[in-house]
Amino acid sequence: MRILLIGGTGTIGTAVRKELAPRHEIVVVGRTKGDLKCDIASESSLKQMYEQAGSFDAVIVAAGNVHFAPLEKMSSEQFKIGLNDKLMGQVNAVLIGQHYIQDKGSFTLTGGILSHDPIKTGCSASTVNAALEGFVRAAAIELPRGIRINLVSPTVLKESMSTYESYFRGFVPVEASRAALAYSKSVEGLQTGQIYSATL
Amino acid sequence: MRILLIGGTGTIGTAVRKELAPRHEIVVVGRTKGDLKCDIASESSLKQMYEQAGSFDAVIVAAGNVHFAPLEKMSSEQFKIGLNDKLMGQVNAVLIGQHYIQDKGSFTLTGGILSHDPIKTGCSASTVNAALEGFVRAAAIELPRGIRINLVSPTVLKESMSTYESYFRGFVPVEASRAALAYSKSVEGLQTGQIYSATL
Repeated sequence: MRILLIGGTGTIGTAVRKELAPRHEIVVVGRTKGDLKCDIASESSLKQMYEQAGSFDAVIVAAGNVHFAPLEKMSSEQFKIGLNDKLMGQVNAVLIGQHYIQDKGSFTLTGGILSHDPIKTGCSASTVNAALEGFVRAAAIELPRGIRINLVSPTVLKESMSTYESYFRGFVPVEASRAALAYSKSVEGLQTGQIYSATL
Repeated sequence: MRILLIGGTGTIGTAVRKELAPRHEIVVVGRTKGDLKCDIASESSLKQMYEQAGSFDAVIVAAGNVHFAPLEKMSSEQFKIGLNDKLMGQVNAVLIGQHYIQDKGSFTLTGGILSHDPIKTGCSASTVNAALEGFVRAAAIELPRGIRINLVSPTVLKESMSTYESYFRGFVPVEASRAALAYSKSVEGLQTGQIYSATL
């Protein structure tokens, strides 16, 4: 398969590339570096990336920003950062990409454990991650031409614990290579509308 | 209790008012009519409404618009209608309202069955309803002063079936008076962070 890996230079993206590269052609898409450039928060950037990509069988998105702040101090503008970036960036990757992807292709998006296991300052992240689960369940039943869609919902990564451990006390971290298996299952399997937790 | 009922003139709002009015003081908030006026899609309108409301113990939101369209034809702008209205309208009702509500007060928001049971043309609605579930789970653990928050997730209403039945084939509709009981449980009970389905 030829796979567009958006966020392919990040911690998860690098692990996904390592998992899939032996068996597939990986096109790394990054905001500032990679085979192709794309900022998923921009519709025109997404469209331009798809125009340049040539034929492809799968899209993986492992990118997206969300703002963390205490609920009491969270402004509407701060809350919307995640809606415009991690949520609408991935939604638009599908809304636009459905017109470019090959028959029987697949989209694999990235949510996260906070959808059901919230932490302090994470109410926007919980909202965005849960939203992506709802989107994937709904998009799966409408996508034409045998196109599939799944979500990977990872817990905090071992590789990120030095930065985030004070937020994720008591969470069992997983290695990025474990999370990468969930992307493999989505891309190389046949299921659709699934939420693949990568928490154990 | 003194309860602000946003969307108090709609089908659900009217049923909630009937359920709660015998035991509580209900302030009906509508977009164009009611004791107070408010368009939840506008932050300034929400703030003005709270400034005018005086002291209150509970907020119920039974309002919010979402755009329905086939996934293949859904534009990013159409998708965002629900994010700005039904989602951010209710999120802002909490982000702003938390600074006005009494100690041990409660917020009760409205999602819907499509979060987990999607229909054709409903991918934005599924996204918004799932997002609200994630928000409520997360906000519940951060709200101060004993303030609670829950979500009511109703299925299609019997009273709305004449308009929506072609979208909801095979769904078991419930009467608005049944849905109203879930709002009563949220406001008059003590639980927080709950999703109360009103589907049976």
